[in-house]
Amino acid sequence: MDSMTLIAVASISTAGLTIAVGSIGPALGEGKAVSTALSSLAQQPDAAATITRTLFVGLAMIESIAIYCFVISMILIFANPFWNHAIAQTTGK
Amino acid sequence: MDSMTLIAVASISTAGLTIAVGSIGPALGEGKAVSTALSSLAQQPDAAATITRTLFVGLAMIESIAIYCFVISMILIFANPFWNHAIAQTTGK
Amino acid sequence: MDSMTLIAVASISTAGLTIAVGSIGPALGEGKAVSTALSSLAQQPDAAATITRTLFVGLAMIESIAIYCFVISMILIFANPFWNHAIAQTTGK
Amino acid sequence: MDSMTLIAVASISTAGLTIAVGSIGPALGEGKAVSTALSSLAQQPDAAATITRTLFVGLAMIESIAIYCFVISMILIFANPFWNHAIAQTTGK
Amino acid sequence: MDSMTLIAVASISTAGLTIAVGSIGPALGEGKAVSTALSSLAQQPDAAATITRTLFVGLAMIESIAIYCFVISMILIFANPFWNHAIAQTTGK
Amino acid sequence: MDSMTLIAVASISTAGLTIAVGSIGPALGEGKAVSTALSSLAQQPDAAATITRTLFVGLAMIESIAIYCFVISMILIFANPFWNHAIAQTTGK
Amino acid sequence: MDSMTLIAVASISTAGLTIAVGSIGPALGEGKAVSTALSSLAQQPDAAATITRTLFVGLAMIESIAIYCFVISMILIFANPFWNHAIAQTTGK
Amino acid sequence: MDSMTLIAVASISTAGLTIAVGSIGPALGEGKAVSTALSSLAQQPDAAATITRTLFVGLAMIESIAIYCFVISMILIFANPFWNHAIAQTTGK
Amino acid sequence: MDSMTLIAVASISTAGLTIAVGSIGPALGEGKAVSTALSSLAQQPDAAATITRTLFVGLAMIESIAIYCFVISMILIFANPFWNHAIAQTTGK
Amino acid sequence: MDSMTLIAVASISTAGLTIAVGSIGPALGEGKAVSTALSSLAQQPDAAATITRTLFVGLAMIESIAIYCFVISMILIFANPFWNHAIAQTTGK
Amino acid sequence: MDSMTLIAVASISTAGLTIAVGSIGPALGEGKAVSTALSSLAQQPDAAATITRTLFVGLAMIESIAIYCFVISMILIFANPFWNHAIAQTTGK
Amino acid sequence: MDSMTLIAVASISTAGLTIAVGSIGPALGEGKAVSTALSSLAQQPDAAATITRTLFVGLAMIESIAIYCFVISMILIFANPFWNHAIAQTTGK
Amino acid sequence: MDSMTLIAVASISTAGLTIAVGSIGPALGEGKAVSTALSSLAQQPDAAATITRTLFVGLAMIESIAIYCFVISMILIFANPFWNHAIAQTTGK
Amino acid sequence: MDSMTLIAVASISTAGLTIAVGSIGPALGEGKAVSTALSSLAQQPDAAATITRTLFVGLAMIESIAIYCFVISMILIFANPFWNHAIAQTTGK
Repeated sequence: MDSMTLIAVASISTAGLTIAVGSIGPALGEGKAVSTALSSLAQQPDAAATITRTLFVGLAMIESIAIYCFVISMILIFANPFWNHAIAQTTGK
Repeated sequence: MDSMTLIAVASISTAGLTIAVGSIGPALGEGKAVSTALSSLAQQPDAAATITRTLFVGLAMIESIAIYCFVISMILIFANPFWNHAIAQTTGK
Repeated sequence: MDSMTLIAVASISTAGLTIAVGSIGPALGEGKAVSTALSSLAQQPDAAATITRTLFVGLAMIESIAIYCFVISMILIFANPFWNHAIAQTTGK
Repeated sequence: MDSMTLIAVASISTAGLTIAVGSIGPALGEGKAVSTALSSLAQQPDAAATITRTLFVGLAMIESIAIYCFVISMILIFANPFWNHAIAQTTGK
Repeated sequence: MDSMTLIAVASISTAGLTIAVGSIGPALGEGKAVSTALSSLAQQPDAAATITRTLFVGLAMIESIAIYCFVISMILIFANPFWNHAIAQTTGK
Repeated sequence: MDSMTLIAVASISTAGLTIAVGSIGPALGEGKAVSTALSSLAQQPDAAATITRTLFVGLAMIESIAIYCFVISMILIFANPFWNHAIAQTTGK
Repeated sequence: MDSMTLIAVASISTAGLTIAVGSIGPALGEGKAVSTALSSLAQQPDAAATITRTLFVGLAMIESIAIYCFVISMILIFANPFWNHAIAQTTGK
Repeated sequence: MDSMTLIAVASISTAGLTIAVGSIGPALGEGKAVSTALSSLAQQPDAAATITRTLFVGLAMIESIAIYCFVISMILIFANPFWNHAIAQTTGK
Repeated sequence: MDSMTLIAVASISTAGLTIAVGSIGPALGEGKAVSTALSSLAQQPDAAATITRTLFVGLAMIESIAIYCFVISMILIFANPFWNHAIAQTTGK
Repeated sequence: MDSMTLIAVASISTAGLTIAVGSIGPALGEGKAVSTALSSLAQQPDAAATITRTLFVGLAMIESIAIYCFVISMILIFANPFWNHAIAQTTGK
Repeated sequence: MDSMTLIAVASISTAGLTIAVGSIGPALGEGKAVSTALSSLAQQPDAAATITRTLFVGLAMIESIAIYCFVISMILIFANPFWNHAIAQTTGK
Repeated sequence: MDSMTLIAVASISTAGLTIAVGSIGPALGEGKAVSTALSSLAQQPDAAATITRTLFVGLAMIESIAIYCFVISMILIFANPFWNHAIAQTTGK
Repeated sequence: MDSMTLIAVASISTAGLTIAVGSIGPALGEGKAVSTALSSLAQQPDAAATITRTLFVGLAMIESIAIYCFVISMILIFANPFWNHAIAQTTGK
Repeated sequence: MDSMTLIAVASISTAGLTIAVGSIGPALGEGKAVSTALSSLAQQPDAAATITRTLFVGLAMIESIAIYCFVISMILIFANPFWNHAIAQTTGK
């Protein structure tokens, strides 16, 4: 059962680290985008429609990068092909 | 019982580190967003409605990244599939 | 008793590190938010009501991230499912 | 089965780290691009068409770098030639 | 007595590191808040009441994060459940 | 089979790290370039043709650096001469 | 006597590191606060009373964080419960 | 065959790291150069010829540094004298 | 005599590192405070009395943090309770 | 053959790291130089001759530092005296 | 003689690192203080007496922090109580 | 032959690292110097003679620091006294 | 002779690192001081006497910190009491 | 001969690292000094004599710090007392 434990430990650690490290960039990027949006709104309230639309498109693209990390993290926990293969092998043995 | 201990140790350490590291980015990003919102309010009090609405949407998106980390952290502690599998195996043995 | 010691050591170290590392981001973010609030108040004393209200909402959201870390830290010390399982196993043995 | 475990562990860890580290640069870069786009829109609302078109081209190129990381990460999990070779060798053995 | 020593060493090291690392963020955050308060007071002496009140609320919230670290640190030294359990086990043995 | 495993592990880890680390510089560089292009467009809409042409030449050169990393990463996974040599040697043995 | 040595070594190292690392944040924070106080005094000498009073309150709060570190450091050297327990056990043995 | 494996592992890791680390500097440098070129174009459209010519000379020199890294990386993978010597020795043996 | 050596080595290393690391923050903080004091004096020579008085109070508080480090460092060298206990035990043995 | 392998591994790793690390400084330095040249050209198009001449002299000197790294890297791969000595010794043996 | 060697090695390393690391903060702090003094002198030559007096007091306090490091460093080399104790013990043995 | 290998490995690694690390400072310093020279030329074309003369003297002094690193690097590869001594000893043996 | 070798190795490494690390702070500090002196001279040529006198006093104090490091470094190489003691003991043996 | 090899390896590594690390500070410091000198010359060409004289004195003092590192580096390679002692002991043996 040793090799399964190793795979489990690696999956757990990597899943956590992936979303943890992967949250730094998108969070800072979104913070910057939102903050400029707010100061732009204060400077030019008439362009609010264009600004918020562009902001939401930008946030969506940055959020997508965080989603990539979340997806990889979830795959490693709930749909890990290496873990499934190991279980299959142990069961079929 | 060795392999269960290893999984437990890895889960504990990863759960803590995930939320700890994962809090840096969102907290700084929200701090930046809130701070610009405040200076925008001081500069253009008339646009308060638009500014606070945009701020809350932005905060929600940044907070969602912190929530991802919190969710992974909670899953690792309370709904860890690797740990459940190990318990099942120990019990059924 | 070796595996229990390992879990205890991991829980202690992680609990401390989680709140320690997790305090950096929120503290800096709140410092930034409060500091901009103060300079906005000095610039536009008439908008004090809106500014302080927005500030408190913002602080609450940033503080919530620190609370996540504190909660995980407390769970690891006082309601650690891995530790409880280990004690149960040792007692029932 | 030892060598398969090693390959699995390396693939899991690398897949996570690749997308995690690889998300920092694109997220910050897109944040910067979006944020300047917003302040440019506020400054020159008449050039909105040119600005948003240039922004989307730029975002696409930056996003492509994040996609490279995601692709490598996915290949390592679901189409890993080293893993396939190891399975083939184990099966055919 | 080995496992007790390990728990003691981990508790000592973690208690110190928790408050040490946990002091960086709040101290810098409070320094920033106080410093802006002072320059705001110099700029708008008439708003002194609002500024100092907002400053104290802000400082209280930032200080609370340092308090979390201090509390965890104290719990690890004086009310450590893992240590108590180990002593109980040694005594009852 | 030990030496093949080592080569496989090294190839997997290096392939991931190469594109991960190699994405930081180009992504930040492109973000900076795109962002200045946008503020230049807002400042001088008449020069849009020259600006976007220069921007695309610049992006192409920066992207080429990211492509180098991606190429090395792909070579290490799908056309690794060391791996091929090892397979040839194992087969011919 | 081995376990006592380990506890002593851990206490010594942690006590020093706690106050060393814990001095960075407060010292920088106080430096920032004092420096803004001075430039505020030069800008608005008439508000000297309010400024110095606010400065001292702020310094007291920042200093309190350094005091936390010093207290933990002193407790670890002169009132260490783990060390006392170890001595008691050695003596009573 | 052990020494060949070691050389292969070292070559693989170094080849990847060389281009990965070596891409940071040139990418940031080119980003800076392109970005200033764009703002210069917006500021002085009449000097477009001189600016773009100087930009391309500069980009060429910076790109040459990235090329050095790519060349070393390629040499280590496809024309590695140490690897060739090892193969020659193994074959001739 | 092994355990005494370990305690001595730990005390020596910690004493040095404590004052070394602990000197960074206060020195930078004092440098900032002094430097602002000088530029404030140049800007408002009439407020010299208030400025230098506030400067000395601030320097005293920052210096106190360096003193904490120095005190801990000296205690570890000349009044180390763990070392005294070890000597007492060796002598009384 | 062990000592030859060690020398080969050290040469490979060092050759790659030398040019990789050594490319950061020159690339950033040249980026800065080129970027200022461009903004100077935009500001004073009449001095183009002097500016581009000075720029090329400066780029040549900075590039020379990158060349030093490339030369050392090449020497380590193709004209390594330690490797030659080892081969001579193995052959002559 | 082993334990004496260990103490000697620790003392040598710590003495060097203490003054090396301990020189960074004071040197930067003094550089900042001197540099502001010079620009203040250029701005307000009439206040030269007050400025240089305040500068020397400030430099003295910053230098005192460097002196602390130098003193600890010298004590560790020439008046090390742990080393003296070890020699005494070796001689008296 | 083991000790010779160790000396060779140390020489190779150090030679590469010396010039690699040693290129960062001079390259950045020269980049800064050249860049200011260019903006000074654009600002005051009449002082071109004095500026370029001072620039070349300054570049020469900064380049000399890079030369020191290159010299040490070359000495370690081609005129290493420790290596020569080892060869002499091996030959004379 | 083992313990002497250890002391020699520690002395060599520490002597080099002390002056290497210890040169960073003073060099940057002096660079800052000299650079402000030059811009002050350009701004107020009439105060040249006061400025250069204050500059030399400041440089002397910063240089003194570098001298401390150099002295410790020299003591460790040429007047190392631990090394002298070891030689004395070896000779007298 | 083992202890001589160790001393040789330590001397080689330290000599290279000393000048490599020790070149960062002085190179950056000189770059800053030269760059300000150039912009001062452009601003006040009449003060060229005073500025270049002060610049050369400043460069000399900063260069002296780099020279310290170079001297230590050379001493470790060509006049190393520990190495000489080891040779003397080996020869006299």
